[in-house]
Amino acid sequence: MNSDVFPAVAAEAAERLAAYWRALAAAELPVVPPGAPGTTLKALPETAPEQGEELTEILNDTWSTIVPQLVHWQHPGFLGYYPTNNSPASVLAELVTAGLGVQGMMWSTSPAATELEQRVCDWLALALALPEHFTHASGHGGGVIQDSASSAVLVALVAALNRASDGRWRQHGTEGRHRVYCTDQANSCVPKAARVAGVGEPVLVPTLHGTLTMDPVALAQRIDADRAAGLVPAAVVATVGTTSTCAIDPIHEIGPVCRERGTWLHVDAAYAGSAALCPELRCGHDGLEHADSYAVNAHKWMRTGTPCDVLWVADRHALTDAMSAAPSYLRNRATDSGTVVDFKDWQIPLGRPMRALKLWYVLRAHGLEGLRTVIRHDVRLAELLAELVENEPGFHLVAHALGLVVFRRSSDEQTHELAARLADEPGLLCTPTTVDGRPALRAAVGSPYADEAGIRRAWGVIRAHAHAAC
Amino acid sequence: MNSDVFPAVAAEAAERLAAYWRALAAAELPVVPPGAPGTTLKALPETAPEQGEELTEILNDTWSTIVPQLVHWQHPGFLGYYPTNNSPASVLAELVTAGLGVQGMMWSTSPAATELEQRVCDWLALALALPEHFTHASGHGGGVIQDSASSAVLVALVAALNRASDGRWRQHGTEGRHRVYCTDQANSCVPKAARVAGVGEPVLVPTLHGTLTMDPVALAQRIDADRAAGLVPAAVVATVGTTSTCAIDPIHEIGPVCRERGTWLHVDAAYAGSAALCPELRCGHDGLEHADSYAVNAHKWMRTGTPCDVLWVADRHALTDAMSAAPSYLRNRATDSGTVVDFKDWQIPLGRPMRALKLWYVLRAHGLEGLRTVIRHDVRLAELLAELVENEPGFHLVAHALGLVVFRRSSDEQTHELAARLADEPGLLCTPTTVDGRPALRAAVGSPYADEAGIRRAWGVIRAHAHAAC
Repeated sequence: MNSDVFPAVAAEAAERLAAYWRALAAAELPVVPPGAPGTTLKALPETAPEQGEELTEILNDTWSTIVPQLVHWQHPGFLGYYPTNNSPASVLAELVTAGLGVQGMMWSTSPAATELEQRVCDWLALALALPEHFTHASGHGGGVIQDSASSAVLVALVAALNRASDGRWRQHGTEGRHRVYCTDQANSCVPKAARVAGVGEPVLVPTLHGTLTMDPVALAQRIDADRAAGLVPAAVVATVGTTSTCAIDPIHEIGPVCRERGTWLHVDAAYAGSAALCPELRCGHDGLEHADSYAVNAHKWMRTGTPCDVLWVADRHALTDAMSAAPSYLRNRATDSGTVVDFKDWQIPLGRPMRALKLWYVLRAHGLEGLRTVIRHDVRLAELLAELVENEPGFHLVAHALGLVVFRRSSDEQTHELAARLADEPGLLCTPTTVDGRPALRAAVGSPYADEAGIRRAWGVIRAHAHAAC
Repeated sequence: MNSDVFPAVAAEAAERLAAYWRALAAAELPVVPPGAPGTTLKALPETAPEQGEELTEILNDTWSTIVPQLVHWQHPGFLGYYPTNNSPASVLAELVTAGLGVQGMMWSTSPAATELEQRVCDWLALALALPEHFTHASGHGGGVIQDSASSAVLVALVAALNRASDGRWRQHGTEGRHRVYCTDQANSCVPKAARVAGVGEPVLVPTLHGTLTMDPVALAQRIDADRAAGLVPAAVVATVGTTSTCAIDPIHEIGPVCRERGTWLHVDAAYAGSAALCPELRCGHDGLEHADSYAVNAHKWMRTGTPCDVLWVADRHALTDAMSAAPSYLRNRATDSGTVVDFKDWQIPLGRPMRALKLWYVLRAHGLEGLRTVIRHDVRLAELLAELVENEPGFHLVAHALGLVVFRRSSDEQTHELAARLADEPGLLCTPTTVDGRPALRAAVGSPYADEAGIRRAWGVIRAHAHAAC
């Protein structure tokens, strides 16, 4: 392939993307595509072409075949799940990262990729006011970019299992004795990580009545009982901003429970962690000095495209003792010298792209003040939406925190009916959940194009469906 | 941030990348940068900026601060590890993927992202002549894009553990009874995956004398002995193209051993799998009908930038039974209908970008014939290099397969000295390994700009260092 054609076709792609973003901003596209399962499959040939095709043709097909069957996650009417937002700075960085095409598994395989990652993880730790020992500069811990909060919690559990077994885990595995603790409000990635790590289902710690947050007294009792029974309480996973309702486990109470018992505390702040860029929204960070690890998805609410989860550990050796591998074909002087960070020993995969460029571009292009403005803007829009819900007869506000508003109708049947109607609504995406055993709907603000008019429009659609239903 | 500036700055980035690629093709850059540890860290401020900066300024800094301290993986003098190569088509696709910014955890969260991935995984399965049950179209198995061969083997082990325990694993973990088998030539990601999965160190099956490949008789004996001892032989990981010497485990003999015993067989073809695009290089595929899973890194030798590992499973339910999670906040009609694929249940992370666009662009832009031409070209260059080694007094060819040439000097001392000299050579990267307990050097051909002149130049450098040493 001749790379001379690249600048022109890349410029064309950039123009198409800018036009796509303008269409999203103007809400000219539906949020959810119309096609039934199989629509895209049918549009694609059953075998790969034998001969090469022109890039412009592939670009055309992208817009004619793929784009119309996407859910537009950046759309202002996208209120589902939690946001996965991006920005021109992030997209530009992805282009440059892909074009440079380096692999940063070790310091020696691309020094700047590793050192840039150390630096931007430190930048973000300072910006979020994390305890100093989470920075690389402290010499104790450090940050590393993972693909997801799922991988971050798995990596944390593995480090915890190794620490809890005094290294016996590396040779002999979990042996059925290790336990992991969380509540039933933890994201599904937490029990999944426990299973993947060979621990089986985690122990579910009761939540405090009404708050859906972990009961620290019950946690202490359960850990002590398990230890008395000969089990090994390896790790507690607390959540700052649960998926269902953005509930915040009391780290300041859970932290001492874990610290006194030598149990690893991982804090999953995948969504709400970004809000800590704003001092007044730094909820749930009290007690973080007791945490062994902490993770935030920059790709959720920090204008950085997915994947970009940042995991910090308080003690880097606790992590690398569990994750390191040093086969002869990876030996190099820098590693042997012990003076460098090899991120392969901070994650599951051996190889990795240059992960930090994207976060560097975003932090610089927006500036911390720019990112704070984004978050405060979305929080205000969520306040508006919560107000609209509260003032609407027949609607009940179930939860409201940061950019998330959870609501239901007066009866479960009505809520189910509204959810069913909204599932057929192309102009809006709200997603369901269950709170205290009852159905509810979630609306999470976070599109780069979110504004008051869009929120009022979305609310109008929700309200109209509710009224049409009863 | 104003997205209006994006097309111009993206066009500028594309021009810079094209110029970078021309400089690589002309070998105008060193392969390995000069800086000592800390060079990049020192060049970066200690805190993130409060106010936003211009994208063009960040782009300038990328080229002044980052690029000079990278190892250039696409450089024709890069012969280290195995290649991680890319192409304009792949880079273009990364730009589009980032710009569209969708998240494809489930079919419902972006139908086209899922269906495109099903289709391109099927395309590649057919192109590699994998057994039909590995395709989505078969209704039995299917392919999924992972970030790495490491994640692929971990996912396979988890599925194997669940199957081996009749589902008891999900609740109770590995309980110290499960065993995983490989040889000491398996990539370090295999024992790491076994540890992460809570199994501890894998059982190392002896290799056949002289070939460094798994001894199928010894494997059968070991599995039978373990089972007799009350253990659960859950999975065997065989390698098609080991990292050290590109050795190929005899799948046609290992396969029946596993099949008869109900043990999961995962085939790690991270590097050599790409060669199977060429019928005459489809070495090691005999017996694949017995494999439960198979993985190739398209990002190694298929002009697709990292990360892009494709994992196929013969039985999709064996995978999703282990990996699925269905919290209330992810419920949707399409999933409930059972008619769609939700790739979140085929991988560790919950979230995922649109992974398939890149592979689609590459397969179409190059065509299968174009990719075959690439591989045959590199194989011929490796033949040339192997010949040069064999004809050089004082050099010994240790192994030569596909694009890999492994060599040593007459004495281990001389090999160590050559390796030390090459570690200081900026124009070339060869990486060390150990074969049969003795040091050796690896040269793997795979740069997009590799040509005969480059190989002869590289050999001249190696030869000159060897002569200067003795």
